[in-house]
Amino acid sequence: MNVQNLKGFRDFLPKEAQKRQYVINKIRGVFESYGFEPLETPALEYKELLMGKYGEEEKLIYNFKTPGEDEVALRYDQTVPLARIVAQYQNELPIPFKRYQTQNVWRGENTQKGRYREFLQCDADIVGTTSLLADAEIIKLVLDIYNALGLEVKIKINDRANFENLDKSIVAAIDKLEKIGESSVLSEMVEKGMNEAEAKEVLGTLSSKEQTETIKTILNLLSKMGADISKISYEPTLARGLDYYTGIIFETIAEGSSGSLCSGGRYDNLIGMFASSNIPAVGFGLGFDRTIEVLEEKGLLPSFDSASKVLVTENSEKGLEITNKLRESGINTEVWLEENSDLGKKIKYAEKKNISYVIKINNEGNTVLGDMKTNEQKNLNLEEIIKELS
Amino acid sequence: MNVQNLKGFRDFLPKEAQKRQYVINKIRGVFESYGFEPLETPALEYKELLMGKYGEEEKLIYNFKTPGEDEVALRYDQTVPLARIVAQYQNELPIPFKRYQTQNVWRGENTQKGRYREFLQCDADIVGTTSLLADAEIIKLVLDIYNALGLEVKIKINDRANFENLDKSIVAAIDKLEKIGESSVLSEMVEKGMNEAEAKEVLGTLSSKEQTETIKTILNLLSKMGADISKISYEPTLARGLDYYTGIIFETIAEGSSGSLCSGGRYDNLIGMFASSNIPAVGFGLGFDRTIEVLEEKGLLPSFDSASKVLVTENSEKGLEITNKLRESGINTEVWLEENSDLGKKIKYAEKKNISYVIKINNEGNTVLGDMKTNEQKNLNLEEIIKELS
Repeated sequence: MNVQNLKGFRDFLPKEAQKRQYVINKIRGVFESYGFEPLETPALEYKELLMGKYGEEEKLIYNFKTPGEDEVALRYDQTVPLARIVAQYQNELPIPFKRYQTQNVWRGENTQKGRYREFLQCDADIVGTTSLLADAEIIKLVLDIYNALGLEVKIKINDRANFENLDKSIVAAIDKLEKIGESSVLSEMVEKGMNEAEAKEVLGTLSSKEQTETIKTILNLLSKMGADISKISYEPTLARGLDYYTGIIFETIAEGSSGSLCSGGRYDNLIGMFASSNIPAVGFGLGFDRTIEVLEEKGLLPSFDSASKVLVTENSEKGLEITNKLRESGINTEVWLEENSDLGKKIKYAEKKNISYVIKINNEGNTVLGDMKTNEQKNLNLEEIIKELS
Repeated sequence: MNVQNLKGFRDFLPKEAQKRQYVINKIRGVFESYGFEPLETPALEYKELLMGKYGEEEKLIYNFKTPGEDEVALRYDQTVPLARIVAQYQNELPIPFKRYQTQNVWRGENTQKGRYREFLQCDADIVGTTSLLADAEIIKLVLDIYNALGLEVKIKINDRANFENLDKSIVAAIDKLEKIGESSVLSEMVEKGMNEAEAKEVLGTLSSKEQTETIKTILNLLSKMGADISKISYEPTLARGLDYYTGIIFETIAEGSSGSLCSGGRYDNLIGMFASSNIPAVGFGLGFDRTIEVLEEKGLLPSFDSASKVLVTENSEKGLEITNKLRESGINTEVWLEENSDLGKKIKYAEKKNISYVIKINNEGNTVLGDMKTNEQKNLNLEEIIKELS
């Protein structure tokens, strides 16, 4: 039998799981500082709810029939479930509804491109208001999240209104400007039916478009909100995922890196899909894996020690008593569980788990605190040890 | 279209999600105070890994073929994945391996019995040692978790050795003693092939069995560890899930309630299933839903306010500035996002979201702090407000 994790899926051993927990907690903390509240939806939904929502990507949805003959599908994103929630609980939710959601999604991606088939999404959305203050708040929220994580970012922003009267296929070509360069974009625009002069003019006009009133208002609000607006750049050719966006669109890039960390915008015609009325919304999805990757590249993650701060090497009556007292004092403590082991084995265990301190009991029955990093040993009584480790 | 969550699956709206997060964090905190570290495994595993492990319950596993033709199954418990992890990463893991796992599992249960098909499990296990100190630590951990949650519990404990030489079907009958009573158990033992006198003798002998050496040692260790052993009762007829347990077994009952909150034991022949050697283990699974239910019944959960502590009702330049300063001071703050709303609408929003305070700006441009619970209003400047809310 192949005793392996499924291809495209990942195990998170303790050090990795701790790191992810640290980053999620930071992000959740900022979400909550703005009054966004958590929402959780099931991993499985009725299949018909997800179908017809994702265009060509629909083929990546995992779906199957249950033993009870329900046609079901695994969560593909957190937006369609949000739309369901808004329709299903419309009388219970405060409006505007500010929710965040940090759950896994599943997509049958091509693993050869290094893509994962199970990954965490961190979304925040404000549902039920067209106020541009909501748009500004969403962008300030992104700035504050990366600020909390210590990462310098730039946000590129545009207004979907800049693409009015342009065909979808032309917008899709322009979307590739940064990736493939101007001449390739022009060729693609010609392929899509424009003549060369026309393509050049469209691109030229677009590139020099001034800020729309919407953009101006949002930037003005951001500045009143205390945002560092030098981190926000207006890019009239930014065109991402225009299909459902109806107002601002933005993406977030780490300084000195490429690839978007976090992107979003206003989408006023999507959330009402199950509610038989338009419901305005603005929000973003944060790429959790990419964010962790960049934080690691830049050395911005703290080193994760063991869950336990100290290992008590003796499990004699005294050792057990010390362990209990340390835990009662709020110090995460392990006691050596095995019988009759030599000290070397215990120290190796502490090293492997990255435990910072060991407490030994010497021949006189007194406690000795050993620092695993400096190898320093101190004769301290229990009270002194608690003081030292607190 | 049926715009509903899937039958047997649950949405957790903000208040519910916050409550769950509170309880999970408490439990994780206690796990970590003992040096247990988090492990996360994928929602999907190769199907063959799960098959043949759950007896008759196997039919409850959700499984399907992916578009890429992989035969996969949704996580059914956290024990088989743990066994895979131990086999796959054996050289990387510290031994003993103390891990906790708090992830969802999926089972095609009968929803008519009020059962959920997606639910959170909280497991902690110590893998790789036969030391009875590990057994004692697991039981102490359960006591400490419920202590942290403020819930009075009793732990019933037994030793699998008490059932030696008894047929599986007889043990299954005895397992029902508390549920169906002695006479029904005796009838069932007779049905399974014993004559009546024999059945009575077996049950009588079992009921009066004294503590085994294993139980005595564990209770002695627990007392040295500072556990209140009056909460632990030896029950020689407790027989739960004997199929894979090899040493102690236990279950946890809330005082004045019935039904197990948390159960476990030692199982030395299971974790090695993929590693071609026996690997001893002891641990438990905590029923998260049942625990929340009992905490609610007993009024032991704090009331959950909004993620935001205060709503700034004005989004003027001054309102935005105040909002930013409050957030910078670590106070979770919302600002009213809509334009031109009357105060009544804003207050209703704060009520619906359970926000504790509102900040208004009066005609003189001064801030007024309103307490949503007492309706008290105080004229305070921003510094004073920050002091009051911190």
